[in-house]
Amino acid sequence: MKNTIILASNSPRRRDLLQQIGWNFIVCPSKFEESSTASDPQALVLQNALGKARDVAAHIEQGIVLGADTIVVHNGAVLSKPANKDEARSMLQQLAGDWHEVYTGVALVDSLTGREVSDVVCTRVHMRQLGAQELEDYLNTDEPYDKAGGYGIQGKAAVFVDRIDGCYFNVVGLPLSRLAKLVQQCAAWS
Amino acid sequence: MKNTIILASNSPRRRDLLQQIGWNFIVCPSKFEESSTASDPQALVLQNALGKARDVAAHIEQGIVLGADTIVVHNGAVLSKPANKDEARSMLQQLAGDWHEVYTGVALVDSLTGREVSDVVCTRVHMRQLGAQELEDYLNTDEPYDKAGGYGIQGKAAVFVDRIDGCYFNVVGLPLSRLAKLVQQCAAWS
Repeated sequence: MKNTIILASNSPRRRDLLQQIGWNFIVCPSKFEESSTASDPQALVLQNALGKARDVAAHIEQGIVLGADTIVVHNGAVLSKPANKDEARSMLQQLAGDWHEVYTGVALVDSLTGREVSDVVCTRVHMRQLGAQELEDYLNTDEPYDKAGGYGIQGKAAVFVDRIDGCYFNVVGLPLSRLAKLVQQCAAWS
Repeated sequence: MKNTIILASNSPRRRDLLQQIGWNFIVCPSKFEESSTASDPQALVLQNALGKARDVAAHIEQGIVLGADTIVVHNGAVLSKPANKDEARSMLQQLAGDWHEVYTGVALVDSLTGREVSDVVCTRVHMRQLGAQELEDYLNTDEPYDKAGGYGIQGKAAVFVDRIDGCYFNVVGLPLSRLAKLVQQCAAWS
């Protein structure tokens, strides 16, 4: 990754991931209004990722813009960010002792040419049964409230997740190996 | 986790993981000489984890000591830390495009009573095919040389791993959800 990526997201998790792999990037959050309805989870995260990337690309002259969107799905229902402690409790009680899916859509838009590549990655996640006290302790932290599904795997909820099937980084917010492939496609454009 | 754990390891990855989940701990590296032979991978990481924890427990009066050992296994062969660039290249060429296993043994020893609990967790990891240039770029970083199998999933090699089956944190160096269960067992002792 020689070229600078423009990250159309304010998520500290996504920034941390790009820092981890040593890519050059600048942050330029989009003003795109996320949709919460679509025909299926894949379509939803794809349209939001593309919407964010296109919005930022429209405002800059030159550069590859990265948009992404992550959702949690349990038994076909989308779990967004919990609005309060009761919602977070209800979400985590639903997820505990069962598998759920995390979908992340990623989109790269070349602001100069308008060329786009995008993809969706799904990871299955299993959360173990949670004790009443450890659940309340977790709800009393800041962690659940700005995250889809009400938990952060890269934070204290790491002890709740006993196995995953798929890309771990996709659960955090960016499917890094798939993203690297998409970036290679962009590099081939020029 | 109310009580302080004594971490019998100098691994910065294990320290980072315990920090992530907010546990109280102090670091007290063991002088135990790791073995590299055993009947099977499980037995190997278990004896090393127990050896490290017992060594530190023997030198302190009171406290729960945590020992751990992580190895990478490909087609039944154990891959340890590469001694140089050629060894690291050969390991990563072997792992690329295939599944391998990561085993971590964890042991908790109560230094006051001598009581012990231990377990082994296995995670399957799939590494994608690697391009010649990205492999050389990676070998020119510091990352491969202090790590079993020659890669760090929590570092720049994140883009090489496209899926895992099992506990992610086990690959980093501590199976956090299993460890939390073992710590609960210890808490029940007192």
